[in-house]
Amino acid sequence: MTALFVTFEGGDGSGKSTQAGLLEEWLLGRGETVLRTREPGGSDLGVELRDIILHRRGHIEPRAEALLYAADRAHHIATVVRPALQRGEVVVQDRYLDSSVAYQGAGRTLDPGEIRNLSLWAAEGLLPDVTILLDLHEDEGRRRLDASRTTYDRLEAEQAEFHQRVRDAYLQLAEAEPARFLVLDATRPAAELAAVIRTRVEELIGG
Amino acid sequence: MTALFVTFEGGDGSGKSTQAGLLEEWLLGRGETVLRTREPGGSDLGVELRDIILHRRGHIEPRAEALLYAADRAHHIATVVRPALQRGEVVVQDRYLDSSVAYQGAGRTLDPGEIRNLSLWAAEGLLPDVTILLDLHEDEGRRRLDASRTTYDRLEAEQAEFHQRVRDAYLQLAEAEPARFLVLDATRPAAELAAVIRTRVEELIGG
Repeated sequence: MTALFVTFEGGDGSGKSTQAGLLEEWLLGRGETVLRTREPGGSDLGVELRDIILHRRGHIEPRAEALLYAADRAHHIATVVRPALQRGEVVVQDRYLDSSVAYQGAGRTLDPGEIRNLSLWAAEGLLPDVTILLDLHEDEGRRRLDASRTTYDRLEAEQAEFHQRVRDAYLQLAEAEPARFLVLDATRPAAELAAVIRTRVEELIGG
Repeated sequence: MTALFVTFEGGDGSGKSTQAGLLEEWLLGRGETVLRTREPGGSDLGVELRDIILHRRGHIEPRAEALLYAADRAHHIATVVRPALQRGEVVVQDRYLDSSVAYQGAGRTLDPGEIRNLSLWAAEGLLPDVTILLDLHEDEGRRRLDASRTTYDRLEAEQAEFHQRVRDAYLQLAEAEPARFLVLDATRPAAELAAVIRTRVEELIGG
């Protein structure tokens, strides 16, 4: 049993859920206890906030949006993630603070450093042991979404330029923290990606 | 027409609504356009957040609670208060950032300076022109509430010691910013208090 905090990042359609699922399956096979979770919406309060953030009709001010994500994060980390890590579990999480910096910081008009500090205050400084960034050109992400969905939520409906800024922001974050990030080309076959991810996680929990 | 931002602060039962109402009436009589508002819950989004903050069953982490108040504030100030001030109106508001510092900062276990910075980030630095603190001993506040209500919301139900810490925090805030605060003994007759408040507001908008 090894406490480990793994986060998946990347644009919509980059395959985060698929890879998180494959990693979970492999960890369970090794006898680890796994908590599979997500932000926003990984706690009871978070489900209510996720609904407001993603599906509310009408304008939400950028700072209010950033603060709602941070509120979701504060509650989720304190009541779900930290207790799991303290029990020695592996937490596999879809989106964390890097999403906020990439989407609210670079994508909107807010200062990325301020968004990061807000997230760190919310989470009392908790950083992932490893963050897997599934990097995908914004056109390919949109093509994948178009093929699988008939409706979009608020963020998915933003224009292509926004998604390009998000991708650039992600790559800058990875460059700034190379030890934490594992950047993968999301167009590679899923089984190949899963193998690379397993190797990295295995190093961390001790093969 | 003079843009002016007036906030009322104090514990529950201190008479904020009564005094805000009397001030509004007097301002309207002078031909001012008045926006009477409140936090939390002074915007469309805020009404949803107020419901979560004050009436939700189950635990809310202190940092999540502080962030929800800040989200409400960010949206309210940007979409309601600033536009009114830009139109040259007088904004009369029940509770603002001092409530957050007093309740979440001193009342809970968070750092008051951090809570203040969070609020100022949310509101892009907007401070009131004058803040009227209706100061009341916590026992008297409770006695007044007991006489008027049969149910309490989450914060009202907190114990007496909490309300004493809130009162102390308010008085410290007023001491730190004497130019902004007008501290009044809330046990004085309502008409007397209203006259003192009018005099202060009249100085600010030019008699």
